[in-house]
Amino acid sequence: MTDSLDPGRATTIRESFASQSLMTSFSAEMTALGPGQCEVSAPIPATARQQHGAGHAGLTFALGDTAAGYAALSLMPDGAEVMTAEMKINLLAPARGDRLIATGRVVKAGRRLTVVTAEVSAETDGQHRLVAVLQGTMVPVPAA
Amino acid sequence: MTDSLDPGRATTIRESFASQSLMTSFSAEMTALGPGQCEVSAPIPATARQQHGAGHAGLTFALGDTAAGYAALSLMPDGAEVMTAEMKINLLAPARGDRLIATGRVVKAGRRLTVVTAEVSAETDGQHRLVAVLQGTMVPVPAA
Amino acid sequence: MTDSLDPGRATTIRESFASQSLMTSFSAEMTALGPGQCEVSAPIPATARQQHGAGHAGLTFALGDTAAGYAALSLMPDGAEVMTAEMKINLLAPARGDRLIATGRVVKAGRRLTVVTAEVSAETDGQHRLVAVLQGTMVPVPAA
Amino acid sequence: MTDSLDPGRATTIRESFASQSLMTSFSAEMTALGPGQCEVSAPIPATARQQHGAGHAGLTFALGDTAAGYAALSLMPDGAEVMTAEMKINLLAPARGDRLIATGRVVKAGRRLTVVTAEVSAETDGQHRLVAVLQGTMVPVPAA
Repeated sequence: MTDSLDPGRATTIRESFASQSLMTSFSAEMTALGPGQCEVSAPIPATARQQHGAGHAGLTFALGDTAAGYAALSLMPDGAEVMTAEMKINLLAPARGDRLIATGRVVKAGRRLTVVTAEVSAETDGQHRLVAVLQGTMVPVPAA
Repeated sequence: MTDSLDPGRATTIRESFASQSLMTSFSAEMTALGPGQCEVSAPIPATARQQHGAGHAGLTFALGDTAAGYAALSLMPDGAEVMTAEMKINLLAPARGDRLIATGRVVKAGRRLTVVTAEVSAETDGQHRLVAVLQGTMVPVPAA
Repeated sequence: MTDSLDPGRATTIRESFASQSLMTSFSAEMTALGPGQCEVSAPIPATARQQHGAGHAGLTFALGDTAAGYAALSLMPDGAEVMTAEMKINLLAPARGDRLIATGRVVKAGRRLTVVTAEVSAETDGQHRLVAVLQGTMVPVPAA
Repeated sequence: MTDSLDPGRATTIRESFASQSLMTSFSAEMTALGPGQCEVSAPIPATARQQHGAGHAGLTFALGDTAAGYAALSLMPDGAEVMTAEMKINLLAPARGDRLIATGRVVKAGRRLTVVTAEVSAETDGQHRLVAVLQGTMVPVPAA
């Protein structure tokens, strides 16, 4: 995934990501961005666990949803913002490891609806294990 | 919704909820619990926003998923714990207001799979607005 | 559920339903229609079974999706038609019995997106058993 | 995708498919089968249309769900059968063309739950267009 978006566009997207306080709370970073693709990575913080000490489904969801949303936004016209209309997640394994890596991808970009998928993997000592897959719909909204 | 679960069972469930650090991070409380039903409420903290200042979809999801999960757990045998197998959320309106209230409900409890729904409302000055609906599957797992 | 739609509107919707050849193939009927609600019923024909002789998930889905779609259309402006953007189904029990009854309901009608749910029950000797729940999104499209 | 399953296993799966009367009604064929993968193809029969003459969402769903189900079954132990626990479909384009081709794939096979995806494409004059993506969960059931 190469950062081959228009530089102004990429900056706008990265600023939008940086303004999501939930991503900051999770110490998440946008680790890659390209046309129709986005990767978001985060540790599995002690503040975002479920009752067994693994990452909470809400953390996994938030990372996958965010990666998918910015993948969608990368193909929308300037001045648009993006909102999740709906998203489905299947959880495959507990979110344990050094960090989570969410990769969002546009399946079909449309004027009114953009269909996206995302995968979330857990990385432990350089090994990756798929922990969740997501499939959903993003819609453009006018920028605030 | 009355708290008519066996008191020991209710205590176990509330302790499980209390041990979810993500719920603590979100200042979420379990505000009701009954057989096949659970309500989780939280403010919309400044630390869990999206780029426009509304609550992040990850917050709404986490509350709805958690309420649905404990609704499922309330009908499972002692000694079980619960895990989300899959969950789908449709977002209806921005999560803005004084707090979010997630109500989980069991549609069908099974030995292997429990199907659940949840609604998440935003409360503002005592008025409620539905902001999301969820539908998914919980599975029992042996307690750690 | 009363058929309290504008009569012209109700006629348009019933004609649209009647023009769906899949519904005719399944001997499905629109058994109720109201603002934001629609019921579709069908036998479980020998031609729509899965490998164990129960109704195929595709039959259950088609009835639930169609009931949900016309529930959405009932709240859309004249001249619109409706399309499924996405739909999720949880199957609760095998589709066995005398007939299936799908009830669609609008959760939130919007200009661009209408969020819907549906329930599908199997009726046997006058007894009803819930066999599936659906949750999805309908979008208006200009009429052909 | 090569038909590299154990021949006895492949025969059992193809017989199960052949016993689904809905697939016969749709003139559907299992056009490929391998470990964790299955392709099902069908024309868009005049008997399975929606109100605008395109293939009904129920047809597209049924093909995708079936391809995903047999992909899952291919990795289950002998003597098991498979059932859809839940399935989500995003529809990307009207189902128009010479035939539909559904490709199911296992994302993660488990003892209790198998997570699957499927893609459905419409073929017209040898050109393929993606019309739907599905993501869901299959569960093993004892053979009848």
